[in-house]
Amino acid sequence: MQHDAGRLIKAPENFLDAAGVRRVFAEGRQGRRDFIRGAFAAAAGAAAPAAFAQGGREAAGDPNILNLPPHGTGLGQAVATDGYGRPSKHEANVQRRRSPGLTQTTQASVSFAPLQSLFGIVTPSGLHFERHHQGWWDVDPSTHRLMVNGSDPSLLKTPMVFTMDELMRLPSVSRFHFIECGANSGMEWGNVAVPTCQYTHGMLSCSEFTGVPLKLLLERCGADVRRGRFVLAEGSDGSSMTRTIPMDLIESGEVLLAYGQNGEMLRPENGYPLRLVVPGVQGVSWVKYLRRIEVGDKPYGTKDETLHYVDLMPDGLHRQYTSLQECKSVVTTPSGGQVLLGKGYYQITGLAWSGRGRVTRVDVSVDGGRTWTTARLQAPVMSKCLTRFALDWVWDGRPALIQSRAADETGYVQPNYRQLRAVRGKRSIYHNNAVQTWLVQESGEVANVQLAA
Amino acid sequence: MQHDAGRLIKAPENFLDAAGVRRVFAEGRQGRRDFIRGAFAAAAGAAAPAAFAQGGREAAGDPNILNLPPHGTGLGQAVATDGYGRPSKHEANVQRRRSPGLTQTTQASVSFAPLQSLFGIVTPSGLHFERHHQGWWDVDPSTHRLMVNGSDPSLLKTPMVFTMDELMRLPSVSRFHFIECGANSGMEWGNVAVPTCQYTHGMLSCSEFTGVPLKLLLERCGADVRRGRFVLAEGSDGSSMTRTIPMDLIESGEVLLAYGQNGEMLRPENGYPLRLVVPGVQGVSWVKYLRRIEVGDKPYGTKDETLHYVDLMPDGLHRQYTSLQECKSVVTTPSGGQVLLGKGYYQITGLAWSGRGRVTRVDVSVDGGRTWTTARLQAPVMSKCLTRFALDWVWDGRPALIQSRAADETGYVQPNYRQLRAVRGKRSIYHNNAVQTWLVQESGEVANVQLAA
Repeated sequence: MQHDAGRLIKAPENFLDAAGVRRVFAEGRQGRRDFIRGAFAAAAGAAAPAAFAQGGREAAGDPNILNLPPHGTGLGQAVATDGYGRPSKHEANVQRRRSPGLTQTTQASVSFAPLQSLFGIVTPSGLHFERHHQGWWDVDPSTHRLMVNGSDPSLLKTPMVFTMDELMRLPSVSRFHFIECGANSGMEWGNVAVPTCQYTHGMLSCSEFTGVPLKLLLERCGADVRRGRFVLAEGSDGSSMTRTIPMDLIESGEVLLAYGQNGEMLRPENGYPLRLVVPGVQGVSWVKYLRRIEVGDKPYGTKDETLHYVDLMPDGLHRQYTSLQECKSVVTTPSGGQVLLGKGYYQITGLAWSGRGRVTRVDVSVDGGRTWTTARLQAPVMSKCLTRFALDWVWDGRPALIQSRAADETGYVQPNYRQLRAVRGKRSIYHNNAVQTWLVQESGEVANVQLAA
Repeated sequence: MQHDAGRLIKAPENFLDAAGVRRVFAEGRQGRRDFIRGAFAAAAGAAAPAAFAQGGREAAGDPNILNLPPHGTGLGQAVATDGYGRPSKHEANVQRRRSPGLTQTTQASVSFAPLQSLFGIVTPSGLHFERHHQGWWDVDPSTHRLMVNGSDPSLLKTPMVFTMDELMRLPSVSRFHFIECGANSGMEWGNVAVPTCQYTHGMLSCSEFTGVPLKLLLERCGADVRRGRFVLAEGSDGSSMTRTIPMDLIESGEVLLAYGQNGEMLRPENGYPLRLVVPGVQGVSWVKYLRRIEVGDKPYGTKDETLHYVDLMPDGLHRQYTSLQECKSVVTTPSGGQVLLGKGYYQITGLAWSGRGRVTRVDVSVDGGRTWTTARLQAPVMSKCLTRFALDWVWDGRPALIQSRAADETGYVQPNYRQLRAVRGKRSIYHNNAVQTWLVQESGEVANVQLAA
């Protein structure tokens, strides 16, 4: 064994009851379609010179006629059978899922994106994670309005109200950005390891967003941005979601009044018809069903930025307005709940991101952080966007502790739990960006573990 | 009027009957949600210093309480109401559509992507265009196989058969690429102008594809790439689709055995579970339901590369293997079927692409090509990928002829119809990359026109 078993803490499985864990593991296995059986078949025939030179069987006899299922015959299905298509029936198991028992209602709740089943960086909108404070709404865009005003008349010259039609006629931009809930990986603080990366890191998604820079609207309305250094964003759903956005972010031009997501209108669960996009900042600030922007001269200290999304520090004080999502990464294959059924080649792959800009490097360890190898970053690497990384790996059949550690263009390096806890203690809920560890056991089963500090 | 009416040819509307044209126009109007009403409301109140300083109304009285619809109350919908979400019910009109009468069956047919309703560069997979030669299939990935063999034993050392599981375990890459049918805009050759950009240019989509470079599999099987300069790709649907792919393209590493599209598995209509991705090349070469790759030493001259997808030249000969999609662009807003109901600011926006690499420049004309202004290109600008462009425009209410003209990194500039016909004549069906012209009439209605050569 390459790791010291004494350093290893098997994660308690009290996130779910035993039946729940079995169910979630079954989801994980089916999630990355047939990862397991594929690995098995490949390994069975492997005697490979090059790392990836495995898999497949030699075609016996005449290769043109043997070994292949027969051609299709008949006409097949018609075009536009569905004017808006759906995934294959064989992929029905790839779903965003909520965890029974995690929240008391299904409206103020979460569903997690199946990261272990996804490729590349774009999250299909149908699998985008959800975090609602009071459920989701299918708002009628023809009656929806956005007001722009000031907390007092001196801060904004001309308060205005816009229809969706008016907003969509203005100059727009399109940009790829990740969105991560500030509570993503929150269960991990207390060694309450959840079984799969869908549930550890699945409050994370990435889309191409289209909208109008908020900066333009504030100029249009005559905001005094010298004195008005903050903006309040207010949603129209029942939770009255309100968040303070610093004017610095808005002046950069990055904050968008977004109506488009992955080429089409936002989905209702993601704030249709209008949400704020605040690149690099935790999801709760990306106010959905956006109805009002107010310019003010100080942070608003609203409910969701005083009671929630604050960090309880070791000295007993709460840290507030830590809304920027620091550099973080996770290996999605192999990950918890998946099973490697044979030795041989695997591509270790995962996602890295930073709220401060571009990811510059991801290192991967298979021995619990003793040694590291730099992974390949898949282009394009974009600012405040998911970056896909990959590393070739030949599994020797012995236990392995797989980790990834990302760095961003500011020089910030993702911490391990020891480093994070030295600053933050153990009582936080939010803003956990520590290195994730997956244990590949000799059986091939992959489990979520934390290494002792 | 800024254009010479004498140069203008009103397009005959024989693509559809009169009722069909009205129907398609209605689709277009609703497609870009409320473009029309938005424009109207904005223009009515416009007296704007800056180009985009219009839209919205001043909030009267206390801006905190007036002018806004009330907040939502109640709980809203639960998370994971649908494990795989759908667009808003208010967007039900945004669909891929087939044109009744264009093809004799609905299986060997086409559905067009609603480009006029889309943002950015990613095409939602549910709206991806379809072109089937014998319908679509929902192939069972657990029984699907890929064979790799040679046209004779000397060209490939070890013929092999791969399961999907085996393929998905190999090293993969993810890349953004456009796919365009070679027949896209084909109706335009004969001045048979179709009414909307969904039907003129909608056999075009763009996705993030994930898969294994074909190069790796040929190495694995011991292909002789010095003599074997061509590959035959064969699909498993009833049409027995077969296409020759030059080894040059494969050796670049760009040709993929793809299973992923926009983060998830391919959709059945797009070749689930495996299709060839041949960046820059017409869609028919991206063989769907891929079952076999054969290495050969000459082009195969199969049915679909001799009878179809060839170009009838002015001298009466057919040009073959012109499968690379040359540089092209189209303005998607404003475009045919949309209506501008008032003067004032509009963002002219559209898409540009080239099968030879990156788009380097898009010029836009509002006077039928007499004068041009360089548009903004939205980052990221990627090779053999759609590029979104935009230009600010203030409409003075007079007729305008809107065009876009793209150039790529090879120095190639998209031709107008006069230039294209000087080389290609008028008898082609495929590979029309001419500049598209939209006429904005004084009424605000936008129509598809061609300018006389």
